[in-house]
Amino acid sequence: MLASWNDGAAKSTILDFVARVTREGGRDYVPPAERIATFDNDGTLWCEQPVQVQAFFLTDRVKQLAAKDQTLKERQPFKALLEGDHQTLHALGKQGVMELFAATHTGMTEEEFDRIARAWFTEAKHPKLGRLFNECTYAPQVELLDYLREHEFKTFIVSGGGIDLIRAFAEEAYGIPPEHVIGSSAKLKFEVAGERPVLMKLGELNSFDDREAKPQNIGLHIGRRPILAFGNSDGDLAMLRYTKAGPGARLALLVHHDDADREFAYDREFKLSPLVEALDKAAEYGITVVSMKRDWNTVFGKP
Amino acid sequence: MLASWNDGAAKSTILDFVARVTREGGRDYVPPAERIATFDNDGTLWCEQPVQVQAFFLTDRVKQLAAKDQTLKERQPFKALLEGDHQTLHALGKQGVMELFAATHTGMTEEEFDRIARAWFTEAKHPKLGRLFNECTYAPQVELLDYLREHEFKTFIVSGGGIDLIRAFAEEAYGIPPEHVIGSSAKLKFEVAGERPVLMKLGELNSFDDREAKPQNIGLHIGRRPILAFGNSDGDLAMLRYTKAGPGARLALLVHHDDADREFAYDREFKLSPLVEALDKAAEYGITVVSMKRDWNTVFGKP
Repeated sequence: MLASWNDGAAKSTILDFVARVTREGGRDYVPPAERIATFDNDGTLWCEQPVQVQAFFLTDRVKQLAAKDQTLKERQPFKALLEGDHQTLHALGKQGVMELFAATHTGMTEEEFDRIARAWFTEAKHPKLGRLFNECTYAPQVELLDYLREHEFKTFIVSGGGIDLIRAFAEEAYGIPPEHVIGSSAKLKFEVAGERPVLMKLGELNSFDDREAKPQNIGLHIGRRPILAFGNSDGDLAMLRYTKAGPGARLALLVHHDDADREFAYDREFKLSPLVEALDKAAEYGITVVSMKRDWNTVFGKP
Repeated sequence: MLASWNDGAAKSTILDFVARVTREGGRDYVPPAERIATFDNDGTLWCEQPVQVQAFFLTDRVKQLAAKDQTLKERQPFKALLEGDHQTLHALGKQGVMELFAATHTGMTEEEFDRIARAWFTEAKHPKLGRLFNECTYAPQVELLDYLREHEFKTFIVSGGGIDLIRAFAEEAYGIPPEHVIGSSAKLKFEVAGERPVLMKLGELNSFDDREAKPQNIGLHIGRRPILAFGNSDGDLAMLRYTKAGPGARLALLVHHDDADREFAYDREFKLSPLVEALDKAAEYGITVVSMKRDWNTVFGKP
């Protein structure tokens, strides 16, 4: 059971929690239908350093688009991205980021995007880890997801990442089907293209699934308070607190990236997704902190 | 198998479809993960006459609120509703309807709404049918949902009705858990009430899940094109067409309410949810029309 987890407080907290909520007739018993477990993705289920996988995907897509349309090389924000000009990119701010997303993630059907994303996952590799991005998942977490499902939990992803990019690999990588993936999303438009009804991904944001939006989207998509939630940054704190606040036994967990040898060591200083408040208040909120270094005997599993 | 369905074209179309998509090695085989079936609710899974169940709920709620706050009896749109003054209600239009929804469905937490709705379902009865509203479900459809799940389909509700009202009875009535219910929704707000994080239902509409919004919300919530869809009005046509347009075997069905003796007979003239275009174009779009009178040997099942 959870062979990739070292014996210690984190592992026993998990095993004890699952035992309690599945023990029929026990005080903390939870019927299978209500065993909702929600996981953040970036930094919780797979690597998010030096930047989130989605940023690599976006950059590769801009390169592919620029190969077909040379004018992109002279237009911002594409020019700055292609030249790795981080200063200009930063100055272009949120508007620049939205334009990059619109150009690479929208203006096509959901099914076209899915094909592009799946093709990318077959060959794109993490620059430092040297493995395919969809193999940058954490073995102890994949094991935990399996373990929970064996105990009749329903496992969901609740991520700030783009919902369709996650759906393109999560079923194979985590055993989590598309309908159990909640993420940031563009508005969709039903259109009849020729004779064929399709869903077009529009350039307009539907939901940025981070912080308070996480429990809000759990309300919309799941309609039940989770009994277990796992995150790794302040962006997950609202979801963890929402989970803990339900009646009966509840478990909230936080991956602490403290393993520079096997992965990366970071928390407060990671601007894209800092871990400050959730770490400082973990004890107060009853959140179990999982040390990557201490609690996992492998990070990515066997190659 | 499907004992409440009479032998005939509709029943054999369903049985044949399920046999084809579940036959391993067959040309039309669909893996269980992709066996998505979506059902409209009002008029497809339960009775929607003389008005949708939600309208009865809303009226009862306004009466309860008016018992506590007498001023409602003098304020529109509440006054018109309480007096059954349909002309004034109609004149108050969409704005009036939104105010009634806001007052009865929002301004409380999701969990508070759920308690109110569940309490209502334990005693509120259909005025003509004389049975509890949550027993106004169609026995042949409940049987079909079971049959599909026995064949490893995932069954979803995709309704124009309020998502939380449906979630309050769908698990017990249909075996469909909250996370498989898509419906019209209010925006939610994560708040910490005292020490306790909750989701407040706001007075602002998030999605009116009808017509084109149905496939759009299927894209957001499910992320996969259904292989089977069942509706009963023009509000379902986009979902039925979206379903049919996927590759491989697909089945789209439409309940035709032609049974004044056992339920109600209506289609084009029902202003709240007309069936016109979907019926006229059923043959062209390859939609199977199910006649309540001819195809079901019972409507509500045994009392």
